[in-house]
Amino acid sequence: MNLTVAEKIIKDHLKIGELKTGKEIGLKIDQTLTQDSTGTMAYLQFEAMGVDRVKTKKSVAYIDHNMLQAGPENADDHLYIQTVAKKHGIYFSKPGNGICHQVHLERFGVPGQTLLGSDSHTPTGGGIGMLAIGAGGLDVAVAMAGGEYFITMPEIVKVELRGKLKAGVSAKDIILEVLRRYKVKGGINKIFEYCGEGIKYLTVPERATITNMGAELGATTSIFPSDENTYEFLKAQGREEDFREIVADKGAYYNEEIIIDLDKLEPLIACPHSPDNVVPLSSMENIKVNQVAIGSCTNSSYMDLMKVAEILDGKTIAENVSLVISPGSKQVLNMLANNGALGKLIAAGARILECGCGPCIGMGQAPNTDGISLRTFNRNFKGRSGTVSANVYLVSPEVAAVSALTGYITNPEGYIDDLNIDMPEKFNINDNLILEPAEVDNDIEILRGPNIKPFPKNNPLGKEIVGKVLIKVEDNITTDHIMPSNAKLLPYRSNIPYLADHCLTPCDPEFPKRAKEYGGGIILGGHNYGQGSSREHAALAPLYLGIKAVIAKSFARIHKQNLINNGILPLVFQNEKEYEDVDVLDELIIENILEQINGDTITIKNKTKGKEYKLLLEVEERQREMLEAGGLLNLIKAKNR
Amino acid sequence: MNLTVAEKIIKDHLKIGELKTGKEIGLKIDQTLTQDSTGTMAYLQFEAMGVDRVKTKKSVAYIDHNMLQAGPENADDHLYIQTVAKKHGIYFSKPGNGICHQVHLERFGVPGQTLLGSDSHTPTGGGIGMLAIGAGGLDVAVAMAGGEYFITMPEIVKVELRGKLKAGVSAKDIILEVLRRYKVKGGINKIFEYCGEGIKYLTVPERATITNMGAELGATTSIFPSDENTYEFLKAQGREEDFREIVADKGAYYNEEIIIDLDKLEPLIACPHSPDNVVPLSSMENIKVNQVAIGSCTNSSYMDLMKVAEILDGKTIAENVSLVISPGSKQVLNMLANNGALGKLIAAGARILECGCGPCIGMGQAPNTDGISLRTFNRNFKGRSGTVSANVYLVSPEVAAVSALTGYITNPEGYIDDLNIDMPEKFNINDNLILEPAEVDNDIEILRGPNIKPFPKNNPLGKEIVGKVLIKVEDNITTDHIMPSNAKLLPYRSNIPYLADHCLTPCDPEFPKRAKEYGGGIILGGHNYGQGSSREHAALAPLYLGIKAVIAKSFARIHKQNLINNGILPLVFQNEKEYEDVDVLDELIIENILEQINGDTITIKNKTKGKEYKLLLEVEERQREMLEAGGLLNLIKAKNR
Repeated sequence: MNLTVAEKIIKDHLKIGELKTGKEIGLKIDQTLTQDSTGTMAYLQFEAMGVDRVKTKKSVAYIDHNMLQAGPENADDHLYIQTVAKKHGIYFSKPGNGICHQVHLERFGVPGQTLLGSDSHTPTGGGIGMLAIGAGGLDVAVAMAGGEYFITMPEIVKVELRGKLKAGVSAKDIILEVLRRYKVKGGINKIFEYCGEGIKYLTVPERATITNMGAELGATTSIFPSDENTYEFLKAQGREEDFREIVADKGAYYNEEIIIDLDKLEPLIACPHSPDNVVPLSSMENIKVNQVAIGSCTNSSYMDLMKVAEILDGKTIAENVSLVISPGSKQVLNMLANNGALGKLIAAGARILECGCGPCIGMGQAPNTDGISLRTFNRNFKGRSGTVSANVYLVSPEVAAVSALTGYITNPEGYIDDLNIDMPEKFNINDNLILEPAEVDNDIEILRGPNIKPFPKNNPLGKEIVGKVLIKVEDNITTDHIMPSNAKLLPYRSNIPYLADHCLTPCDPEFPKRAKEYGGGIILGGHNYGQGSSREHAALAPLYLGIKAVIAKSFARIHKQNLINNGILPLVFQNEKEYEDVDVLDELIIENILEQINGDTITIKNKTKGKEYKLLLEVEERQREMLEAGGLLNLIKAKNR
Repeated sequence: MNLTVAEKIIKDHLKIGELKTGKEIGLKIDQTLTQDSTGTMAYLQFEAMGVDRVKTKKSVAYIDHNMLQAGPENADDHLYIQTVAKKHGIYFSKPGNGICHQVHLERFGVPGQTLLGSDSHTPTGGGIGMLAIGAGGLDVAVAMAGGEYFITMPEIVKVELRGKLKAGVSAKDIILEVLRRYKVKGGINKIFEYCGEGIKYLTVPERATITNMGAELGATTSIFPSDENTYEFLKAQGREEDFREIVADKGAYYNEEIIIDLDKLEPLIACPHSPDNVVPLSSMENIKVNQVAIGSCTNSSYMDLMKVAEILDGKTIAENVSLVISPGSKQVLNMLANNGALGKLIAAGARILECGCGPCIGMGQAPNTDGISLRTFNRNFKGRSGTVSANVYLVSPEVAAVSALTGYITNPEGYIDDLNIDMPEKFNINDNLILEPAEVDNDIEILRGPNIKPFPKNNPLGKEIVGKVLIKVEDNITTDHIMPSNAKLLPYRSNIPYLADHCLTPCDPEFPKRAKEYGGGIILGGHNYGQGSSREHAALAPLYLGIKAVIAKSFARIHKQNLINNGILPLVFQNEKEYEDVDVLDELIIENILEQINGDTITIKNKTKGKEYKLLLEVEERQREMLEAGGLLNLIKAKNR
């Protein structure tokens, strides 16, 4: 059988199910990663499973989100993660070492292996030929404990890159073009597999820009073959022994095929407030910018920042611009410091931030009120920058750098010649901020600061579900709406009671109060409910508030699984027009729920309106069991009993 | 007449009064500086005076405090300051350019001139032979408008430095020794003037470390002569034309003289929670540290960080340590980037923060709960770090760097040889982040974001003062107690109504509520009330809450003036034992206040206790007028009428 790259890796790791599109499969997970904002919960859940040592080939805990540290919460969480990692066999990347995806690519990623990460941009690893998938913290905890990770066997989309990019057009523009075509939900249950002559001209970090932002398609993941470029990258990282060639077989079958002519690609820009709101940069030129932000897991590699340094060399940023740069890793920053590029960035007027996620997650550098911010990041959801009224545009590093000089959104084609930045033959290798785990049977004491609160637990499903509709939201609600993630709230990622008071408040400030007043209830959502990050907190906070079910037109993949993992029913209207019929504070009831969830449809009664609707529970048997048990942890405990 | 350095500068700038210790004098101010956390108020007040153009030789507005930017407030304030500065003839140092005191020393400070700054560490300028004084924002606004700055003619303390520092002992240890001897209120109404053979071995940045932290003595200022070292520094900054020799006359009279034998000085450490809690470092060795923080206006110069880079070169920080470094200025950072030192710091595992105040003002990098933090800063007040339970120790950069490597408080004497860092012959000069003001008669539009609220205004004194005691606090209450200044509150420095809800809450969380409930009242304080920073907000927030008087055992200089500037009476017990007699919610009344404030003492009746006390109002005639008018702005307006 002729297989695609993704299929080859899936086949190698298939523990349950078969390679049939649309069927559930269970995958063996080789590697896991966590970051600090999702990691505390993942490790609390891992501890709850009572497993002494991770069973993966390699698990790494990164600190890259909560690095501003306005109060003791962050440092406390970091120490918890540092000690729990050391105890249980997990590598720990200290704060300052860089963004999880960038560092993982540099130091740990292995072509052909599977990677599960509690961060939605885990598909970055697809750039080095891994099958890298983002998931909720509990799924990652299960994988660390040796359990399979379940997905629906996705469709494979062939993305053929033809030709070569022009000067001023970059990898970022390729993924913006895919987003322009597919939009934020066009990738659901799909893997985007890149191939074609054009990939020869893309280095691993450039490929990683594309697979990283593939997350915005709602895709399961994106992947590139592992080829000579992959080998060159690994060799330059001193890891050539990790190389393994993985290319698609001739005649492999793809469910869908698209072609992008790189020669014809022009610089693109994603306009507020969605990463798929993509238009030609030329149509947005001459908008005055207040801030330019370069970095994030999408565009903070050595190559990216070297380009920026070359563009800024000897020049000064515009008077009206604040330019901030957050390098992707200590390796990147150290190389820029050693080769003089960092000096050029500083001389031009850039503010150099720590190696971390920084402004991409609203962790600092919020724009001014109504400000225009041009960013090389992957998301521009409203308010994510920390400033609700700001307008955030997503662009390539080249566009960002040139625009920082002119003070206006500017097409780099007229301003820069072909930048000749070569991939280094040898990266600067110094892993002294990565702490190795302790030996087996250690007596490491786990430090738990007062910010680390127990996570909420659900109960097994009862006879019926009764509750009022507590909120009704529109299409494409993101996890940033459900559980806002800004500089003020991120420090409380291990404190669900605190976070719950901010749940869904961007949609309705009264929601948490109302949920508490009615002792919980039901959320009503539109299409693609829960898109965006992998944060489990978007399920844990509703759970804490007593949410029993979310009824929507459709769900984003990771969020749906997070709801199921926590025993909250993700229900879909059979006839989506009935969404219109339901209002806030309508009282709904699902009788005989335990019977009904085993049937084809579920009947829900609207007592307020005196009507009935048919709902679908589109889950696998395994997930149904979780829901009956009141969540995955309950199920694991019940099975171990 | 034989004069000291300070007296020479005072004489040159004396507009009102005479050189008589203890008498009020009015000084002409050559230069002013503001930073962003006090600057917004200062410029709002400047605008209220209706003066079109600053009348100083040079005024500079710096952005160095609110650089994390968790919400739009900071960027909004920065834009306000940027535009108001441009309009009214003030230089603007953009965020990223560095800490006000460091940059001012490098690029603007002129020996022999007077400098008034709305930051308590303005005496840093004494390192370059300026008479540099910290003041509230309103005083700086008045100086910008051409008004005199009034102080009590201080006593001059001669600090003779003999011999030369040993390896491992640095300028920081000199000022820690002075603090050990004089304590935090030993410098009130004094100028510390340094001289002796030992000063030859101290470069301008090292001298500035000493004058900077002299602020912790409660001193009016500290000063060094302007000599060949000053010339060398100015020359290396390309500013030799700004040099003017100023040394004390032989036979000049000092009110007090002390001697420090540098040869015998050992490394010192200030223990929690006061900068005068100084003991030999050797007595504190082997305490395990969680965090080491290097930087701040005290110790972030090129020389300081070069020493740190040499100590860390080729090594790795301890596993238990998070090392953060905030360079003092873009000049410093750029030079370290260009000469390879920055690469060494990064390689060793340091987290490089922006050029700004950063963790020194609790703007990020709060330690873990109960954490031990070793810092090269100037203040270790409880909670200032952002973590109330943290223990902060103050040390030199050498001690900090060596301790970051060992993981314990460590005496550098055993670990480092004599570090040979030479002052550069030429600093890296690139002022492209300093924006020049616009021409006179410009039409610059001043941008006012929604965070900029009008400041509260007082009314002229009425017939009597009646009010309840709303809080009773102990000795040495700092402005950090009165108006906490942390990452969560600093962004609201131009929003007094918001800040007022946090006024004095570290002492009593109910204070703002109680003040509002009773419609204002009176604060009861101990000795040295209002020590610490120059922030006017420690007067503006109480004013907003209706505070009419503060009765204390004694006041810190700048805070007392800030109270008077805003029309709040600073009263002192004639018999300080009566402090014991007064309790919270006692009702106090001062009758015929307008008559009484012109007498020797003021009688206050305690209606609750049925007693009377005598109070002193230790103010000048000029200040009495301000109090009668309800503050300085009212007085200026009344006089202009």
